[in-house]
Amino acid sequence: MSSGAATPRFRSFMSAALDQARAAATRNEAPIGAVIVDPQTNAIIAAAGNETRARPDPTAHAEIIVLRAAAERLGQERLSGLDLWVTLEPCPMCAGAIALARIRRLYYGAHDPKGGGVAHGPRIFAQSTCNHRPEIYSGVDESACAALLRRFFAERR
Amino acid sequence: MSSGAATPRFRSFMSAALDQARAAATRNEAPIGAVIVDPQTNAIIAAAGNETRARPDPTAHAEIIVLRAAAERLGQERLSGLDLWVTLEPCPMCAGAIALARIRRLYYGAHDPKGGGVAHGPRIFAQSTCNHRPEIYSGVDESACAALLRRFFAERR
Repeated sequence: MSSGAATPRFRSFMSAALDQARAAATRNEAPIGAVIVDPQTNAIIAAAGNETRARPDPTAHAEIIVLRAAAERLGQERLSGLDLWVTLEPCPMCAGAIALARIRRLYYGAHDPKGGGVAHGPRIFAQSTCNHRPEIYSGVDESACAALLRRFFAERR
Repeated sequence: MSSGAATPRFRSFMSAALDQARAAATRNEAPIGAVIVDPQTNAIIAAAGNETRARPDPTAHAEIIVLRAAAERLGQERLSGLDLWVTLEPCPMCAGAIALARIRRLYYGAHDPKGGGVAHGPRIFAQSTCNHRPEIYSGVDESACAALLRRFFAERR
């Protein structure tokens, strides 16, 4: 696991994920956003924020929505070679889905000691039974990602 | 975690899950089936088998499909008070989703030492950070559930 350097390219894809997170906040959803990128073309294949309330669907985290959308768009269940960018450390459900989808690289912003499943809790990719481990870059644009979450939950307390 | 007694009621809901698993096999999907039951009325709220190939969708395990369907049907993201029956030990993704959905009881059939996330691997519900732990009954109709999986994969080797 590496700490993400804030190069222009890194900023650009995490900015797109942050846009999705901000849009989620305006819908009163948890402000978490994700994009799936094809690193060969730098094209964004799918982008979404959380939608658990609107659908309603307990599985509609940003990561799950973009994994499903990318698989549908590409017509294949495995997304080998594609990268996922998300503003918050994925939860165990989402980390499991990322492994099943064979995502190449996972870039995430804020750490989540309470709900995370990558660097915390069950540490899904560190399990000997994990079927696929993406390369992991954490702390990408961390302060912006964390500030958005802090502000959202502070306003609702 | 308890071993499931094969009472008539237990058999009936696991039989419904097994029917879904068999139907999945005929579609060339992994033969795993699940149902969500309201224990107050004994009504089956949702039933599905795996659909990862048909959609295609790497998250379309039987458990995820029934959780989403039940949430949509009931119009709420939390399924507190409902039970999930599935023919195979849930993977880490599905176990995480079951916790997020606040399922009351999880009944499963065959154990899955390679891919399971309940009694194996990351043991999702045993983590101190896990937000919700269902009551767990394992080994329900285990021989029928396991035989179905064994036969399916033996035919394809």
